[in-house]
Amino acid sequence: MTLPHPTTDQISLPIVLAVLGDPTRLAIVRYLASKEGVPMNCSKFLDLASKTNLSYHLAKLREAGVTRAEAVGTSRLITLRRDDLDNRFPGLLDSVIAAADGDPALPIVGTVPEIDA
Amino acid sequence: MTLPHPTTDQISLPIVLAVLGDPTRLAIVRYLASKEGVPMNCSKFLDLASKTNLSYHLAKLREAGVTRAEAVGTSRLITLRRDDLDNRFPGLLDSVIAAADGDPALPIVGTVPEIDA
Repeated sequence: MTLPHPTTDQISLPIVLAVLGDPTRLAIVRYLASKEGVPMNCSKFLDLASKTNLSYHLAKLREAGVTRAEAVGTSRLITLRRDDLDNRFPGLLDSVIAAADGDPALPIVGTVPEIDA
Repeated sequence: MTLPHPTTDQISLPIVLAVLGDPTRLAIVRYLASKEGVPMNCSKFLDLASKTNLSYHLAKLREAGVTRAEAVGTSRLITLRRDDLDNRFPGLLDSVIAAADGDPALPIVGTVPEIDA
């Protein structure tokens, strides 16, 4: 099953910034960036938010073009659209991730066991 | 009169990103960045939004620590907190502005006569 995603050209700067402007979504993006393109099972992020909230955050990221999601059975495999974002907005993702890494108040993924794809 | 502003340390990445995630506020930031620290009268931005909406957007920018606003009589003089933002989030503002400059769909300031301080 294929979920709707914007094309690279459809990715909008204000929408990407607004979507990144949330601690939970920043944590998801930082984690995906650290995995360098390896698809992550969405259950990986359940320590960040309830299932309902997580679905909401993952949909926002996908609809903005920040992530790609593939439905596999009842779960989703998530990847960061790094090439698309770097292509559209050079340097933006790296500066956001670096800034987030420098802020110890932000949540991070990693308190539940890994359930990788 | 002094309006409330966060200190440099209080500037929050998610809040800054969320506040920048709006076409009108991006236009204000790009314009202020192009003026390199010269305070701008808030009326400069009236081509972007109604007075009420503009007040809202300018308050969001100030409260996030993106801009500094000084009330002078009935108007406000606005500057970009570039040093504070560059200090907290190196490279972020430049990459956001470069990305915005590359998007012709975003609004720009400049259809009303300059009423600079």
